[in-house]
Formats: sequence, C-alpha cells, structure tokens
Amino acid sequence: MTTTPLASLGSRAKVAARELAKASSRQKDAALATSARLLRSETDQVLSANSADIARAHGAGASATVVDRLRLDAARVASMADALDALVALDDPVGEVVDGGVRPNGLRVRRVRVPLGVVGIVYENRPNVTSDAAGLCVKSGNAVLLRGSAGALETNRALAQVLRAALETAGMPVDAVQLVEDTRHETVEEFVTLRGVIDCLIPRGGPSLVELVRAKASVPYVVDGDGNCHVYVDRAADLDVAERIVVNAKMQRPSVCNAAESLLVHAEIAPTALPRLASALAGVELVGDEAARALVPGIGAATEDDYATEFLGLRLAIAVVEDLDAAIDHIARYSTGHSEAIVTNDYTAAARFVREVDAAAVLVNASTRFVDGGELGLGAEIGISTQKLHARGPMGLRELTSVKYVIEGDGQVRS
Amino acid sequence: MTTTPLASLGSRAKVAARELAKASSRQKDAALATSARLLRSETDQVLSANSADIARAHGAGASATVVDRLRLDAARVASMADALDALVALDDPVGEVVDGGVRPNGLRVRRVRVPLGVVGIVYENRPNVTSDAAGLCVKSGNAVLLRGSAGALETNRALAQVLRAALETAGMPVDAVQLVEDTRHETVEEFVTLRGVIDCLIPRGGPSLVELVRAKASVPYVVDGDGNCHVYVDRAADLDVAERIVVNAKMQRPSVCNAAESLLVHAEIAPTALPRLASALAGVELVGDEAARALVPGIGAATEDDYATEFLGLRLAIAVVEDLDAAIDHIARYSTGHSEAIVTNDYTAAARFVREVDAAAVLVNASTRFVDGGELGLGAEIGISTQKLHARGPMGLRELTSVKYVIEGDGQVRS
Repeated sequence: MTTTPLASLGSRAKVAARELAKASSRQKDAALATSARLLRSETDQVLSANSADIARAHGAGASATVVDRLRLDAARVASMADALDALVALDDPVGEVVDGGVRPNGLRVRRVRVPLGVVGIVYENRPNVTSDAAGLCVKSGNAVLLRGSAGALETNRALAQVLRAALETAGMPVDAVQLVEDTRHETVEEFVTLRGVIDCLIPRGGPSLVELVRAKASVPYVVDGDGNCHVYVDRAADLDVAERIVVNAKMQRPSVCNAAESLLVHAEIAPTALPRLASALAGVELVGDEAARALVPGIGAATEDDYATEFLGLRLAIAVVEDLDAAIDHIARYSTGHSEAIVTNDYTAAARFVREVDAAAVLVNASTRFVDGGELGLGAEIGISTQKLHARGPMGLRELTSVKYVIEGDGQVRS
Repeated sequence: MTTTPLASLGSRAKVAARELAKASSRQKDAALATSARLLRSETDQVLSANSADIARAHGAGASATVVDRLRLDAARVASMADALDALVALDDPVGEVVDGGVRPNGLRVRRVRVPLGVVGIVYENRPNVTSDAAGLCVKSGNAVLLRGSAGALETNRALAQVLRAALETAGMPVDAVQLVEDTRHETVEEFVTLRGVIDCLIPRGGPSLVELVRAKASVPYVVDGDGNCHVYVDRAADLDVAERIVVNAKMQRPSVCNAAESLLVHAEIAPTALPRLASALAGVELVGDEAARALVPGIGAATEDDYATEFLGLRLAIAVVEDLDAAIDHIARYSTGHSEAIVTNDYTAAARFVREVDAAAVLVNASTRFVDGGELGLGAEIGISTQKLHARGPMGLRELTSVKYVIEGDGQVRS
C-alpha cells in the first residue's frame, strides 16, 4: 500500500488552511451540516469499514476495552453526526474582537481571533475523535491532519472520505481534512517535527506518546495529559454529598481522564466517613495507607505508585490526611494538574483549596466528572489541556484560535 | 568558581513560586517599589560591576554594538528603576475573572487568572532585561530563573543581589528571583529541559538559540523570534505618509525586531514613489529586484537571502509587486510573522491586508515600530511572541499568567 508522503499532506494542509481562514461562518456551517447529513446517509459504509477494524482487533487478540472503544454502531454514528450539527449552533470564534481601544497617539488597536492554521492531532482508536476533531477544526477555520491509530485505519478512512466529500459539496477545500494513513509507530516522530506545517499539535494518548512529544516535537503543542484526580473529603463535609460525589467521580465512567483516582479523607471525619464511603464503593478495589486500613479492614496497602497512578479502572488509592494543609500538600505532590475536588461546608477551607491547589480545574462540592467541554458549555472538545500555556482544561473552539493585533493609524510614526 | 547546581535553583524556585502565588497585590507592589528604590541607591555598585563586564568585553575584542548593549550609566539604571515603579501602577492580572456563568445544573463556573509558576528566560546581554523580567514575574506572581549571558555576568549578579535584597526587605521569598550563574554554552540544554520546574521558557536570542530550544526543549516555551518585517506601499498610498512610515520603520532604531527589513511597492506607484523613498532613506544600503533597480539606479541586486534576512541594521531589501495579491504572497513567503504594515488609502486593500496577512501584528498607515508592549499599553514586555500558541505579539503581565477553572456546586454529580 502506498500512502501519500507526510510532506505532501502538509503542503496541501497549508494551502487549505489559507483558504479556510477566509471562509465565512455560513460557509463553514454549511460544510458541517453537510458532513452530518452525509455521515447519516453513509452509516452503512462506515459500519462496514468498522467491522473490518473490529475483526482485525479480534484477530490480534485485543482486549474487550480496546474493542469497545473502537466499535461503532448506528447509534454511535448518529451521535457523531449530532455532534457535527451541534457545532453549527456554536458561535464562530474567528473574527471575535477580544479587546481594543485607542492609544494616546490616536492609533486604533484591537486584538482579533484568527485560526491557528494547521492543527495536527495524534490519537488512539476512538473513531468519534476523527469527526469531532475535524468538525472543531473546520468551524474554527483550521486545516487538520488526523493521525489516528493503526487499529482504526479502515474506520478513519471511511470517515475522512465522508468529511472530505462534504467539504467538496459545500465548496470548501477538501484538504482542510486529511487523514495520515501511515500509522507506523516510527513515523510519529516525523509527524511531530513537521516544522513550518503544524501550528498546533495535540497529542492525545498515554504517557509514552506525551513523553515522545516532549522529547522530540519541534512544533508547538498542547498536551492532553493524564488525569490523576483527587477527591478530598474535608472535616466539614456533608457525608451524603461526599458519598454521592466520590461514587460518581470514581465509578460513573472509570476509564476517562476526569474520573477520580485517589480519595483523601480528613482524619477527624475518617472514622465515620471512610467505612461508609468504602461500602458505597462496592466493586472498586481499594488500597490505603495505614490509617485507612485500620478503619476499613481487609483493603490492601497503597504504595507510592498507587498514589501516583491514573488507574483508569475500578481501583482507588485512599489516604487519611491530618488537615487541609496535608491534603493540599498530597495533591501538590501527586496531581497531574487535571481536576481536583474538595467536599466541604467550611467556607475558608473551600476558598483555600480553590486558591492553593494548582490544577486546570478545582471543584467544590461537585464531581470531577464535570471537567469536560460539553458539561462546561464549550460544545465538543478536542482534548483537555493539562499544561498551563495557551489552553488549560477542556479545549473547544476558542482554544483552536490565536489572536492578531490590528493597528490602524493615520500616518503615525514613533519618536 | 562554584555555582549552585541548576536542580537546586529549580527546587528553590518552585517553593518560592508557591509562596508568591499567595501574595497580595499590595505585597508584590511593595517589593517592586523597594526594588526600584534599592536600584537607585545602589547605582554605584551596579555601575562598578558593569565596568568589569565592559572591560572584559573590550579585552575580548567585542564589537561596538555589543559593548553598547551591555553598557549601563546612571541614566540607564534610573530608567530601569523607573520601569519597576511603572509596574506598580499596572493592574495585577492574578485573580482576574476572565469569564464565568451558571450551568443549567446549577454549577457555578468561572475562569480565573493564575500565575504560571516558574518562568525561565534565556537572554543576551542587555542588562535591563534582568530587572524588567524580574519585575514582570514578581508582579504576575511567578518565580523567575534568569539565564543571562556570560558577558553580562557581573552586572547581572549585582542586579540580582539588589532585587533579592528588595524581596527580603518586603518580606517576600528571595528565591522568587534567581540568577543562573553557570552561563556556559553547553548548559543551556540542561536549562531548557528542567522538566517539572519551568512552566514557561522564554528564549530571547538569535536563530541558533531558538533552533536549540525547538530541537531540545522539553519544557513549554514561547518563542521570541525574528522580525523580518515588511512595509507595503500600495497603489493608493499617500506618499507623504509612506515616506514618513518607511523612514521611521527602517531608520528610527534599526537594531530591533520591529524595524522594517523589506519594502514592497505597488508597480503603478513605483516610478513616483521609489525614487522619492530611496532618497529619503539616505544612509541605508538598498538592494532591490530588477524593477526597483531600473527606477533607482545604482542600488545592488537583492538575493533570495536578502528578502529572507532580518538585517537588524541599515540595509533594506526592495521589491516592486504587481498588485496587492503579489504583496500578500511575498509576505506569506518571507515573513517571520512579527509585524507587517500597509500604507494605503484604499479601504478594501487595507481590509484585505488586515485579514489575509498572517502575523502577530498587522498595521495600516502606521510604523511597525509601534509593535511593542509599552506602545500598546501593556507596560513593560518580557518578549514579543512570534508563535501562535499562548501569546502572540508583545508579552506583558497577562501573558505571564494561565487560567484555572473554578467550579462550585451543591453536591452535583454527572448522570
């Protein structure tokens, strides 16, 4: 099989990006609506391509989780189409005047949102990322290079074909959406060094991908990193609320980055709280420190590694902490800076937690599961940034833009 | 000479950053005012350290430009102190609520500005960068690691001592400002890989530094890149305005990044405009394409390299372009994305230039020299970003912050 060389894809993406940057909101929305329509009408073709990937995965002995992430059905395709339609309803970020004013010398200055240019995304085998990322990029005026996984290649090909056909139908540059079909592991490095092509790289994957990007990437990137999220049950917590939040944060969807991985409980409330929480967490493998084990007999001992691990499954590391300071210190030590929650009715404790915990999102009396583009009103998201530069937390349309200074004068010069 | 290992500086910076993030605006402003006061009272010590650097530079046969950049006198020290005082008057960006609202489920969501943490800056031998960067970082609640040049080491030591003494006097963590005294070339690489320490690296230097950062850095960074800036004199330009702007953009301070390096002139107006502009540019070495040379006899031929070079001196590359499209194409090909200007009275041409030219700043009928933090009302600047992520254009206090989602609820969980 011959695939198009990366450099050619890159040149085409740049040309498409320049065209797309000039497109009106109406044109972009038409392309999105057409994409949704074609995705619905081509569901069978997408599902048949997906079956081939699923068969390959089974043949390679993939785990049930992997197969489930990869598998599409009519309902899943329909919800991918719905997500494209939902983007139409969102405001176009391009052209928004962020701020502005007149300088003392009469210069009229404003900052205006502009597309980034070419977005590159490296991701694993959830096929909905293909349509979500493409939709977000088109709406925000960016061309996108989609580098999905080898395991989802047939599905992604079918999806890319639909999306490109929709662009063509809508009179937009088809190369605004391009799939990188060379999914060999050794070419990731080439992808993350496409200097002068990729304006923003978004690596969505495990620690080894993030590590490779940090070590090798020469293009600008925003890391969608791990979520080692904590729930801290304070001395002044309402235990009903604590139980609801801990159970939801851990169990509602344990395989995602905003699920909780560690539970911290204030020592004073632990004798009442911990046995109750442990029993509510039935089905979760609990490990704890000495104090936790004394209160919940039969659970395993937590190691350093447990506190530092994003389990992405039904396992939870528990620590009993002396006070709020100890909770904040524990989080500072182990947090990946994703989402951190406190359960408390103590106003001062809540305020200190909000101020002193360093993470993309801090929550008071709410589940960490809310840290998500949809839940926070951004519409779809292209990832959740765990870094501090450019974007922090869920990345939606706004995070796929840059700004440009526009400075207008009447012949002013500097003295 | 023993210098403190980088890792120790890093740990101290992290501790200081956590303290500094909690400081009030009043405390930070007190530290800045004290810094300004001490800098004035210790002027002699700073100047004597500077004399040592100057002597060393002379001994090493440094160029007049290098020596001039390095040299301090009482007036320059006073203006460094003034710049610190000026920061006091600016709004503290930390704590600003960027946006927010209530979600349908009652969650109260807001995004709040927070310090980045630890800022690392690599720079050349202008000593004012030391106090400017330190002041900006303190005001924005960040600890800073200052990696100045070997040539300015004595000056920077004296400055850092003053700044740290001021922090101590004001009851703030002294390690909020630390000078990296190991200025050997081979340790830059160690500096740009201080993972887990540096939250934002700002390389300010020539292409080789930027290249090293892109290739080797594993910490997040914002590039302060070259400025290959163009002035395009459109067919509909007012020639008085054009002359004023071209002369100012090229000659007012040719050694800086927002000075113009290329002049594009519309073919229709070139026969009148070019001879006049050339004569106004007396003292500047002009090179041009064939059409330009036909109109201005005696100037040299411009090579590809000339159009691609940031001269940082009294040399200007000229091209005659067929129309606005050709001007935009030329800029797209050679621009470094810094500052690009059009001189025109044609409304549509101005609008197209603003929209289609991809740069940190686009200017209409104004000199490129205005693209500067002070001129744009940001106060001092820590650099001018030529990348599209995080910050674009002059970086002031706001660009030294990140945001944090604060999500408050009453026990909400996700269903």
